[in-house]
Amino acid sequence: MSTRKMMLSVCIGLTTALALSAQTTFDPQQHKVVTTQRADGRYISTYGVAHALLKHTTPKYAYRTDFSKEEFAAWQEGVREAMAEIMCHPVVEGQPAPVCIGREQRDGYRWEKWEFYPLPECVSTFIVLIPDSVKTPAPAVLCIPGSGMAKEHLTGDIAVRNPHTAMALNIVKRGYIAVAVDNAAAGEAADLEPLAGSGYDYDTTSRILLELGWSWLGYTSYLDRHVMEWMKTQPLIRKDRIVLSGFSLGTEPLMVLGVLDPTVYAFVYNDFLCQTQERAIVMTAPDERGRRGFPNSIRHLIPRFWEFFNFPDIVASLAPRPIIFTEGGLDRDFDLVRHAYAASGHPEAVETHHYAKYAAPETRNPATALPEGLDRTTFYNSVNVDSPNHYFKDEYILPWLDRILAEP
Amino acid sequence: MSTRKMMLSVCIGLTTALALSAQTTFDPQQHKVVTTQRADGRYISTYGVAHALLKHTTPKYAYRTDFSKEEFAAWQEGVREAMAEIMCHPVVEGQPAPVCIGREQRDGYRWEKWEFYPLPECVSTFIVLIPDSVKTPAPAVLCIPGSGMAKEHLTGDIAVRNPHTAMALNIVKRGYIAVAVDNAAAGEAADLEPLAGSGYDYDTTSRILLELGWSWLGYTSYLDRHVMEWMKTQPLIRKDRIVLSGFSLGTEPLMVLGVLDPTVYAFVYNDFLCQTQERAIVMTAPDERGRRGFPNSIRHLIPRFWEFFNFPDIVASLAPRPIIFTEGGLDRDFDLVRHAYAASGHPEAVETHHYAKYAAPETRNPATALPEGLDRTTFYNSVNVDSPNHYFKDEYILPWLDRILAEP
Repeated sequence: MSTRKMMLSVCIGLTTALALSAQTTFDPQQHKVVTTQRADGRYISTYGVAHALLKHTTPKYAYRTDFSKEEFAAWQEGVREAMAEIMCHPVVEGQPAPVCIGREQRDGYRWEKWEFYPLPECVSTFIVLIPDSVKTPAPAVLCIPGSGMAKEHLTGDIAVRNPHTAMALNIVKRGYIAVAVDNAAAGEAADLEPLAGSGYDYDTTSRILLELGWSWLGYTSYLDRHVMEWMKTQPLIRKDRIVLSGFSLGTEPLMVLGVLDPTVYAFVYNDFLCQTQERAIVMTAPDERGRRGFPNSIRHLIPRFWEFFNFPDIVASLAPRPIIFTEGGLDRDFDLVRHAYAASGHPEAVETHHYAKYAAPETRNPATALPEGLDRTTFYNSVNVDSPNHYFKDEYILPWLDRILAEP
Repeated sequence: MSTRKMMLSVCIGLTTALALSAQTTFDPQQHKVVTTQRADGRYISTYGVAHALLKHTTPKYAYRTDFSKEEFAAWQEGVREAMAEIMCHPVVEGQPAPVCIGREQRDGYRWEKWEFYPLPECVSTFIVLIPDSVKTPAPAVLCIPGSGMAKEHLTGDIAVRNPHTAMALNIVKRGYIAVAVDNAAAGEAADLEPLAGSGYDYDTTSRILLELGWSWLGYTSYLDRHVMEWMKTQPLIRKDRIVLSGFSLGTEPLMVLGVLDPTVYAFVYNDFLCQTQERAIVMTAPDERGRRGFPNSIRHLIPRFWEFFNFPDIVASLAPRPIIFTEGGLDRDFDLVRHAYAASGHPEAVETHHYAKYAAPETRNPATALPEGLDRTTFYNSVNVDSPNHYFKDEYILPWLDRILAEP
């Protein structure tokens, strides 16, 4: 098969010879931007063609600031239908109801662990933290972790040095019910990596799912949706006051669930707001081997995603439901979301924060379009991201929760 | 974004600590097979679930030995429709006709280089070798290279030490017109890798195409199809005597074009015949880091492929058009193809060869199903593959071409 190493030693010989002669001459700086020398503007490199196809792709449900009221509503519905189409959630019936498999009283709250059965082949788990103060139906926050994290990092079951990490624990201590899930292929849903002491391998599983016409995000959001449905049935949870809180990778299932389920009350978006299509278009700087790479791994691959929308369009479509952004991005993208919220009649329902480093407007890149030729570092700098300070910003989030949940 | 390194130093610290304690205890041999300890058979690991979903996937157009004549015809049509659906070839009109950009007389044949324009963003090239002996319309072979190869390896424009490599040159010397193409992202269609002296990066381009709802194979077969259509218009080429010849990776576009275009006359399949779904199911042996990996890279990823068929089903559907297999595989898979050819009334139209090492039946694995828990090496051994002898087998192919093209 084609994955075998080429046995044609002559080719390997040639490549080696080329490598020796080229190593001293290839300068990545000279090739940061994708160009063609042809007068007709065509590309002979397939990368050049694919890059041009990507640039020429205008998502069908890109938000437009000139929407009429009717167009706005139709656009929201279009986003929802497209999201349902590409997430490919199966309809599975006849599975057992979730079961509580552990219960403990802790300091000021009850800890419960539950199993649920979203597919005939699958069992999954989540943890619920219920404040002792909650005696009647109350709001609840579904907490979705970031990459490399387990739900137990959020609940404090795995000790964490950075207290911000314990999203669910901090929320229950604030007096709200918190439900913590694992992402697909991580935490208890990991395969052998924890046994071997290595980081979670999201990508092998993603690859199998993609081959089957599904995706990591389609799968993980399908599971999260089951947890959310379970939450709605709980006597102590107000089904009209469910908040989704996503950290980093967890913002992706947050967007999916938020769009698919209009009953979700509010959203904590703890990552910078990224226009991922633009990111893929502008991150064209090659490495020393002449490879331009792709901004992220296939756990983020959803075929046809950009046919429909980008992240800013998706979160804009959540209007007028309350949302807090805690880690900035380009003002351009915040402005788009704010425009949609204003158009929905609730400009006050969106709260935005930049990284502290970029809190002052004059420190931020005011660009409305990014230039091609960026690498990872220059991209993050361009979009006002301060990676070392990427953490769950409960200093903003907890007061915001109090505010939006104060209404009866 | 979620692709950034986790900044939660505590997690990294934990992982490192786990790694240190686990390194001495994790034994990949103990975990070769995917298992669950649960009485209900459910998996908690997402890999386990995805693996089970994969095992439970029965392709809609799997060949069945009990097909009636009508069912057989409907199945062939179904394979064709499904292939068209997942290859997503666009309909592009108004592009310029191919242009000859170079012509040379060489020793016994004419060398021509052509440009063609399959997409508004794209120019691509192919090389045609026409024997001096050809004066009237004659058969022609479209030659598709393997991984890491350029069309110039096939035509002898890049000197090759192994004479088998020069597929197109060997064919023109045998007296047949040969047309050589690059695979997408390779040869002239590569990006910067040749400048930097490194191997072709098929995967970045594949990733962009996949995001857009396309795929490497969909793209490369779309280009090859244009070359084939051009061949049909050439005065010296008999459009009813076009042969497709694929080496290694090149067998994939061969299968696509063969299915989509019933006018292709015959096929040279120069790789072992692989049941790729089974391969993904059985190659579950983890590495030292506890990662099971996937058998190949995303250049081979076509969402929904196994929903419809596996390679043996596809080549079976080419019946009764002549085909030669030169590098074996499991007899089970050859038997399936032979059954289809017999059912089509032309058992003589399929010729099969195993690797010399496995030429004697008693040296081959007679398995009809492979066990889980294989790694790359044990998989190749199980399917009778002798990787070091993976080369273009013109010792079988040239006489076969003479035979099948002898008919008027």
